[in-house]
Amino acid sequence: MNERQRARRPGGRSARVGAQVHEAVTALISERGYGHFTVGEVAARAGVADSNVYRRWGSLENLLSEVALTRLDAQSPMPDTGSVAGDLHAYAANVAREITGPDGLALVRLAVALTSTGQQGRQARDSIRDERTRQLQSMLDRAVERGERAPAALDVLDHILAPMYIRVLFGMELTPDYVDGLVDRLL
Amino acid sequence: MNERQRARRPGGRSARVGAQVHEAVTALISERGYGHFTVGEVAARAGVADSNVYRRWGSLENLLSEVALTRLDAQSPMPDTGSVAGDLHAYAANVAREITGPDGLALVRLAVALTSTGQQGRQARDSIRDERTRQLQSMLDRAVERGERAPAALDVLDHILAPMYIRVLFGMELTPDYVDGLVDRLL
Repeated sequence: MNERQRARRPGGRSARVGAQVHEAVTALISERGYGHFTVGEVAARAGVADSNVYRRWGSLENLLSEVALTRLDAQSPMPDTGSVAGDLHAYAANVAREITGPDGLALVRLAVALTSTGQQGRQARDSIRDERTRQLQSMLDRAVERGERAPAALDVLDHILAPMYIRVLFGMELTPDYVDGLVDRLL
Repeated sequence: MNERQRARRPGGRSARVGAQVHEAVTALISERGYGHFTVGEVAARAGVADSNVYRRWGSLENLLSEVALTRLDAQSPMPDTGSVAGDLHAYAANVAREITGPDGLALVRLAVALTSTGQQGRQARDSIRDERTRQLQSMLDRAVERGERAPAALDVLDHILAPMYIRVLFGMELTPDYVDGLVDRLL
């Protein structure tokens, strides 16, 4: 266990600070929107020193991407149902429920905001994409290890996730039949 | 020709006002972003009366959707190459060039902004979607009239446009081979 990992063990001071900072970010996003608050304001809201936030996350962009990934992990975790069809149907249904719920476009908003905030923003956006793709790939790898055929992770992005996001962005309904149909079509 | 159409004949005063107002909106979007200017500021920038803007467009949201549709018509017009494959390849290549260019995410930004500005915003967003879908449907209808088989307009949205938009939003490159592959896969 290196020092960084030890500093973040669950239940320690570091975990409490992490939770407070995440809560502060979530509140500021909801009140002001991305791009309308600073690390100093996050720190003040969380009751910690600016230097603490900079030391741990390096930049506001890194912090935003960590908060987004934590939300994605909690709300659309990768399922493990025992079959690739079961996994993809469950995952697609989770994402559909999430993106049609309150502030369902949070990830789209964040990606737009990060894309326009220079190199650090683009790196933070890429790290969200890469981490979620890695998680998806692990789910698909498990299927292949069981002897199933599985689609590529990028095909899941292109033909299951992308259509759902774009339909929500343009105000179209996602019915369960439609979402299941996207999965069946890809499989 | 009804009164509304006559009032907008090319080259008339109404056309000049329209062009000035469109230019003012484009400048304000670029300087401040969506949601950070009013009809009054558009009118002042265009050198026309507020009442003129309200009478003609009804709301800022309607004006934003008209400006967006004008841009889309100019930059990604529906092709008419004589075959559905030719049309879809040309259209996909146009959209890819447009969304990887300067402020390529303009339409995504606008949809996000309109989605969060109440009923009028959502109606304006829906009108952009419906108008572009209608244009795409006309292109596909021409193919069917020629005796070709054509995909549904919503399948073009889901499996050609959506993947391109989501890939750009998350910082991934759109190669010509990838774009052509999306079209070939759907056909």
